[in-house]
Amino acid sequence: MGARKMAKKEIVVREEILGSNKKIAADIRARLEAAGVLVVNLLSSPGSGKTTLLERLVETLKPTHPLAVIEGDIETERDAERIRRKGVPAWQITTGGACHLEAKMVARIIPEIPAETQFLFIENVGNLVCPASYDLGENLRCVLLSAPEGDDKPKKYPAAFATADCLILTKSDLVPVLPFDPERAAQEALEINPRLRVFVTSALNGKGIAELVRYFIESRANLIQRQRHA
Amino acid sequence: MGARKMAKKEIVVREEILGSNKKIAADIRARLEAAGVLVVNLLSSPGSGKTTLLERLVETLKPTHPLAVIEGDIETERDAERIRRKGVPAWQITTGGACHLEAKMVARIIPEIPAETQFLFIENVGNLVCPASYDLGENLRCVLLSAPEGDDKPKKYPAAFATADCLILTKSDLVPVLPFDPERAAQEALEINPRLRVFVTSALNGKGIAELVRYFIESRANLIQRQRHA
Repeated sequence: MGARKMAKKEIVVREEILGSNKKIAADIRARLEAAGVLVVNLLSSPGSGKTTLLERLVETLKPTHPLAVIEGDIETERDAERIRRKGVPAWQITTGGACHLEAKMVARIIPEIPAETQFLFIENVGNLVCPASYDLGENLRCVLLSAPEGDDKPKKYPAAFATADCLILTKSDLVPVLPFDPERAAQEALEINPRLRVFVTSALNGKGIAELVRYFIESRANLIQRQRHA
Repeated sequence: MGARKMAKKEIVVREEILGSNKKIAADIRARLEAAGVLVVNLLSSPGSGKTTLLERLVETLKPTHPLAVIEGDIETERDAERIRRKGVPAWQITTGGACHLEAKMVARIIPEIPAETQFLFIENVGNLVCPASYDLGENLRCVLLSAPEGDDKPKKYPAAFATADCLILTKSDLVPVLPFDPERAAQEALEINPRLRVFVTSALNGKGIAELVRYFIESRANLIQRQRHA
């Protein structure tokens, strides 16, 4: 929450919530790492294309890699239904007003995830601000930025980009008809966070999906390697 | 925050903040109504086109109606600079992390607004969730939804639509190349809030801008009428 002047009581309560969230997230991460599951937390504004990207990832991964999806929204089961239609287990968390997922909401679902699962994708509530403060036990945090949103967004909403491992530029098929420069967007994000892996994608024409899937598969292989040597 | 389970302490602190915000907002509204200023609060996701729409509104209104703009962002002065380039007074509030504007941030700027001002537009932080809970002293709350975000968003993010007076569908020039049905988007929003006034706009080709400006001018005339009879 940075420089906003908050009441002292508000700060204390907020720190308690984040502290408790961090503990639950660490526990989720430990349990799923031990089970060989790579957890990916997808963050973005509403309408950046998280669910459509997930549909493409599911189609590409499903034949060879068992996966599961948790969908976060304020209301409606719509997104989980879209994923289930692809034949993949999906759980919908509706926050009933809250602007982000918290680790405790995810923790309740963990016991239901099938034993063979290799990847768990968590689609956060559409919000480029608040979800950045909440660790959900993920191994990779990916922030999406769609071409129609504009290439000036990273510096205006820096926390999501600062805390992410990868930046997925989506809807790149629209670049020809929009004043959006993927280079500029990537450059701004890299100035905030130089270790970001950047992917330019289009769920419509498939651009960048194979590279992204490869990145997730490699990240899981590294995770399992680390587990073996731990 | 609806059905999310919050700690009792969190609820108390939140109610205190919202209660104090409501009082400051009521004071802003009373002062600006007495001065004949119509205040419009613009809410949407990041990248829905709030600043670009404001640039068009400024160009249309400025020759005949003095106006002023307050820009809300987490970081950067970019948006206020864009408005100032149009020759209109603009103030940038950077929240330094907070995901919404609060009335107290706006209150600090009120004394600086020129006496002749007829319209004050406040562009909120790009976030379709949290700003809906904070009255800024506005007379009209307008929620923007851009064609690329998808026509399924009202029911997924209902609070912004439930508390708004008007819905501005933006980037309508992109409708031909996108799976977006303005009718469906409007219908979903109207099911949540039947009193919404709906405008279909494009800042690029000017569609709907004149109608929107007329709505603001009429709303101000009604406000002044009410003031006279009060």
